[in-house]
Amino acid sequence: MTDRESLANERFNCSERERAVFEAGIKLATIYHQFVGTPVNMDTVEDLERTISKAIEVQPYVESARVKIPRTFFTKDGDTYSYVSLTGDMIDAIVVIRLGDTKVTAEMRYDDNLQYPLMYVSSIE
Amino acid sequence: MTDRESLANERFNCSERERAVFEAGIKLATIYHQFVGTPVNMDTVEDLERTISKAIEVQPYVESARVKIPRTFFTKDGDTYSYVSLTGDMIDAIVVIRLGDTKVTAEMRYDDNLQYPLMYVSSIE
Amino acid sequence: MTDRESLANERFNCSERERAVFEAGIKLATIYHQFVGTPVNMDTVEDLERTISKAIEVQPYVESARVKIPRTFFTKDGDTYSYVSLTGDMIDAIVVIRLGDTKVTAEMRYDDNLQYPLMYVSSIE
Amino acid sequence: MTDRESLANERFNCSERERAVFEAGIKLATIYHQFVGTPVNMDTVEDLERTISKAIEVQPYVESARVKIPRTFFTKDGDTYSYVSLTGDMIDAIVVIRLGDTKVTAEMRYDDNLQYPLMYVSSIE
Repeated sequence: MTDRESLANERFNCSERERAVFEAGIKLATIYHQFVGTPVNMDTVEDLERTISKAIEVQPYVESARVKIPRTFFTKDGDTYSYVSLTGDMIDAIVVIRLGDTKVTAEMRYDDNLQYPLMYVSSIE
Repeated sequence: MTDRESLANERFNCSERERAVFEAGIKLATIYHQFVGTPVNMDTVEDLERTISKAIEVQPYVESARVKIPRTFFTKDGDTYSYVSLTGDMIDAIVVIRLGDTKVTAEMRYDDNLQYPLMYVSSIE
Repeated sequence: MTDRESLANERFNCSERERAVFEAGIKLATIYHQFVGTPVNMDTVEDLERTISKAIEVQPYVESARVKIPRTFFTKDGDTYSYVSLTGDMIDAIVVIRLGDTKVTAEMRYDDNLQYPLMYVSSIE
Repeated sequence: MTDRESLANERFNCSERERAVFEAGIKLATIYHQFVGTPVNMDTVEDLERTISKAIEVQPYVESARVKIPRTFFTKDGDTYSYVSLTGDMIDAIVVIRLGDTKVTAEMRYDDNLQYPLMYVSSIE
């Protein structure tokens, strides 16, 4: 552990497990609020998915981040206005946090019943 | 509890306490990644602080959100280019989450020793 | 004119009129890409409109910025999930740029026929 | 020209040349306000540059967009906190707009004398 990691640890008044869940919440909201609004089309979507994943993976304690944007949101042909701005409802994400001995998996996707792009904790190990 | 709240609850595989911490992480990252980049000066900073707080308070399970942007980042006089773009290092935030019987307080501010705008859990009750 | 304004002017290889139009484009895209994603509901929308307007008015050469978010996008009652994330389609904005003797008015709003939130120049005086 | 392009054209009360400059302003502000705040390090910066360029190139009337983020902002080694959040001062961008017979080149980069990340029109052909 580096000096900075020790310093950061001192700020937390919670268990390692709770902190891992907190970090997971940070990462999902980063995906949403940083990238919603990005212009994207069928040709650039794969690239955008990878870049969002990588941006999250440089944040602290991320083991992996997978982002998928379903291709159903795009048209194959069209004119100069036929692209979309990324919305929260288009994002399907799974983030795995590793902090000490704790592994947290958290997910975000649009829930048809809720009509809401829900972020939730799917497992803690 | 509404039907939608029940539906959301079913997605979570963790305790109420862990979920409250997760929600706290979401809110702090929303502040950061939604508003970093906003043009602001001495005349508009108070308004921006209040609007960020209110935006967070409409999100689920937020009891209160307080955002301060120290006035030391601003000059009183100047020309048309004398404003700043909000950066993470300028944000001082305290978010209180209330979920069932759990109350979580989480904070974000620039840590001089860490040289990093740390988000952390300061208390769980 | 301040020294910094003179310095900035030297960078431009276009007429004052063209520069004023360029500045108008900057401001409308700032509204869109800075604030899309912001959580907002019926209680906070007025505050958000004012804060976006003020944020744009601190940018160079803005005489006025007016932002409206139609209330039809909001429900009056609801549960904790009954708020929305601001999208480009919800924004109705008019920005007036004043640069020397030139006044440019530019607007952004969702165009039903285009099915696109169009930004356009409505007048140059 | 498609029907939608015709419809959009009707909204504009300015010359083709002025519209091209307006579009250039939109694109530079999109780069700034969409991507400022993105977590990035030495390993992901090349990917982020390409993705920003591609996001701009899907917008209307963009012939090319080139984004560079100088490597001097990054450290090669470090701990989990050794990454940066993209700021406007780190962005060096050149956008070329092609609209009818007009070609506009606009640029954004931090100006040491201005102490400001200036967006400007460098040529109109």
